[in-house]
Amino acid sequence: MIKTDILIIGAGPTGLFAVFEAGLLKLKCHLIDALPQPGGQCSEIYPKKPIYDIPGFPEVLAGDLVDNLMEQIKPFEPGFTLGERAETIDKQDDGSFIVTTSKGTKHHAPVVVIAGGLGSFEPRKPPIPSIKDYEDKGVAYIIRDPEVYRDKKVVIAGGGDSALDWSIFLADVASEVSLVHRRKDFRGALDSVEKVEELSKIGKINLITDAEVVDLKGEGELDSVVIRHKDKAREEEIKETDHFIPLFGLSPKLGPIANWGLEIEKNAIKVDNSYDYQTNIPGIYAIGDVNTYKGKLKLILCGFHEAAIMCQSAYQRINPDKKYVMKYTTVSGVSGFDGSKKEAKREVVKSIN
Amino acid sequence: MIKTDILIIGAGPTGLFAVFEAGLLKLKCHLIDALPQPGGQCSEIYPKKPIYDIPGFPEVLAGDLVDNLMEQIKPFEPGFTLGERAETIDKQDDGSFIVTTSKGTKHHAPVVVIAGGLGSFEPRKPPIPSIKDYEDKGVAYIIRDPEVYRDKKVVIAGGGDSALDWSIFLADVASEVSLVHRRKDFRGALDSVEKVEELSKIGKINLITDAEVVDLKGEGELDSVVIRHKDKAREEEIKETDHFIPLFGLSPKLGPIANWGLEIEKNAIKVDNSYDYQTNIPGIYAIGDVNTYKGKLKLILCGFHEAAIMCQSAYQRINPDKKYVMKYTTVSGVSGFDGSKKEAKREVVKSIN
Ligand SMILES: Cc1cc2nc3c(=O)[nH]c(=O)nc-3n(C[C@H](O)[C@H](O)[C@H](O)COP(=O)(O)OP(=O)(O)OC[C@H]3O[C@@H](n4cnc5c(N)ncnc54)[C@H](O)[C@@H]3O)c2cc1C
Ligand SMILES: Cc1cc2nc3c(=O)[nH]c(=O)nc-3n(C[C@H](O)[C@H](O)[C@H](O)COP(=O)(O)OP(=O)(O)OC[C@H]3O[C@@H](n4cnc5c(N)ncnc54)[C@H](O)[C@@H]3O)c2cc1C
Repeated sequence: MIKTDILIIGAGPTGLFAVFEAGLLKLKCHLIDALPQPGGQCSEIYPKKPIYDIPGFPEVLAGDLVDNLMEQIKPFEPGFTLGERAETIDKQDDGSFIVTTSKGTKHHAPVVVIAGGLGSFEPRKPPIPSIKDYEDKGVAYIIRDPEVYRDKKVVIAGGGDSALDWSIFLADVASEVSLVHRRKDFRGALDSVEKVEELSKIGKINLITDAEVVDLKGEGELDSVVIRHKDKAREEEIKETDHFIPLFGLSPKLGPIANWGLEIEKNAIKVDNSYDYQTNIPGIYAIGDVNTYKGKLKLILCGFHEAAIMCQSAYQRINPDKKYVMKYTTVSGVSGFDGSKKEAKREVVKSIN
Repeated sequence: MIKTDILIIGAGPTGLFAVFEAGLLKLKCHLIDALPQPGGQCSEIYPKKPIYDIPGFPEVLAGDLVDNLMEQIKPFEPGFTLGERAETIDKQDDGSFIVTTSKGTKHHAPVVVIAGGLGSFEPRKPPIPSIKDYEDKGVAYIIRDPEVYRDKKVVIAGGGDSALDWSIFLADVASEVSLVHRRKDFRGALDSVEKVEELSKIGKINLITDAEVVDLKGEGELDSVVIRHKDKAREEEIKETDHFIPLFGLSPKLGPIANWGLEIEKNAIKVDNSYDYQTNIPGIYAIGDVNTYKGKLKLILCGFHEAAIMCQSAYQRINPDKKYVMKYTTVSGVSGFDGSKKEAKREVVKSIN
């Protein structure tokens, strides 16, 4: 059982900054995210794109913003449960909560903060009716450990960066890599597209464009895929393979949180924005893209504010008898994890005699 | 008459960022500030101190934050009325407002946003009963144009950075500079203190410590100050001078805004934080340190959020018939002042044949 003061579901920019604000109040945080890395949409969807409306940054790459936030929260040593989805929540008699993930990891905290953004990212699946039967039996939507594919035959489907990059990577690992894409146009970094072209020319990637995987075959385990070509004859080809990996991107789903008894509106969680961004369940807060209220803007800078306000209320919940007096970071600094204190230099006082 | 879409009173970090958010909605802004430079508390009180809780900046000097914000809003070409205090507001028949400053400058806008922080900064004055009679007749609290003091006799009072730095600067301009300070300890940058010490040794600054200016003399115009020494005899010295400049720092006062008919609570303006940070007078908003609501935190990052939310409501007020659809800056960019468009690079789409 992982124990913490504030359990944060979602390690996007909002969840990360909440760690900082909580840290200033000496509250420890632990974050759960379905993705294997922190940063939410910024890391998963547009790490290399510039954002122009983060206050104080005329321009910042989404990935750099996440790196900066990770650096900013480092002194507070947050815990992470990554690659696992928060599935269930159980309220304890003392008012605290236990949250269990898709892999059964349990987390216990007096305060739960949902910073789940648009939801947990789930892979987009191709519309092949039998695909469910082959999941984990040859079909995977996310590549976690490339060694699984060593000396195997692999069919990858997709036309974006993931499909391109993994095809390039696995060309040196798998015994055979086929990349199937509906069009001739690829949507990805120019050098990745060119690298695939090159590997295709020397026979290290078997490039099949204007084609789609339409069916899967095999007894129990996958043994081949059916590829349909787009030309007029719509001819079908059966291709033997050990693995089929459709990489069509991830799409967010509010998912299991939708069943936690929270008031939901427009696929988002209603909160009290006139005070502390608490949900209808006391002790559960929702901040960032995942919440909704009159006038809500799904912007990163709004998530930051919500995180700061929420932490004050969480502090009172956790420490009902204490009164927190806000101090400016400029004046009191940030307590470092090693016991050292990062603080502003004092003004110089010097006598002239 | 200066005309604009949104008239912002206060050019602190909140007012500055409001220009950016308004600009994204194609609304023009004009800012009024009593101080001669933008940046509010950050520029006036602690430009060289680090702030640790601006999201995405593990550490940033207050002055640098202001510079970054000025850079960020540059494409939107805000207007500035600096060194003037907003004094009166008059509602027009069409619901718009005219705001007049201490110098009589008039500004007309359909929306007024008060981002006045702790209030306009007013000089702290020494407790000399007759001082009011000599204001602008030899006594000044802020140095605007040092040339006024060329070849004149000047007495400066104070023990902080302003008193030190202006004494050093005027040593080369005025015919005589005296620096009077109640104590021997100075509170300022070490090199300034040392420089004053040095200039005092070579007779370029007449340093008078453990002493106070207690009275002023002169018919109509100032012609001398009375300096009382702190030693037991408390002896008094009359010193001829053309100018007396007490530099005891600035302290903020809500000032004339307190009489605009706005609902005031705890020396701040009550706003509707459940929606758009509007005050009790429709069309007048209050954002940043100057406003108050349940759970209010006087933090820079909160002012940023309030600015963003406020702008959406102001947009609706100014364009009642339009529906604004929010676009991410990452996707739509920022329209540049020269007609050029700053925008994110498109994903590369390349065919492989
Ligand atoms: C292309 C694009 C451009 C954008 N441009 C801008 C811009 O210019 N300016 C701006 O302010 N915003 C922009 N945004 C929006 C911005 O990215 C979001 O506002 C921001 O990411 C929200 O942060 P968050 O932390 O609230 O949620 P997210 O970033 O969505 O993170 C939520 C995290 O929670 C996780 N999660 C959800 N449910 C669970 C669960 N049950 N278990 C485990 N984990 C879960 C998800 O996996 C995800 O990692 C843009 C978005 C996109 C897609
Ligand atoms: C020493 C110190 C350290 C701080 N450290 C931090 C920190 O670490 N983190 C943090 O978030 N915050 C910190 N703060 C607080 C932070 O500076 C304020 O929250 C912030 O400046 C508020 O911005 P603002 O734009 O709302 O108001 P201000 O910065 O106060 O600016 C308001 C402006 O309005 C002008 N004005 C007011 N009335 C009028 C009028 N009638 N006419 C014309 N002009 C007018 C004033 O002259 C002023 O320039 C600190 C403050 C101090 C003093």
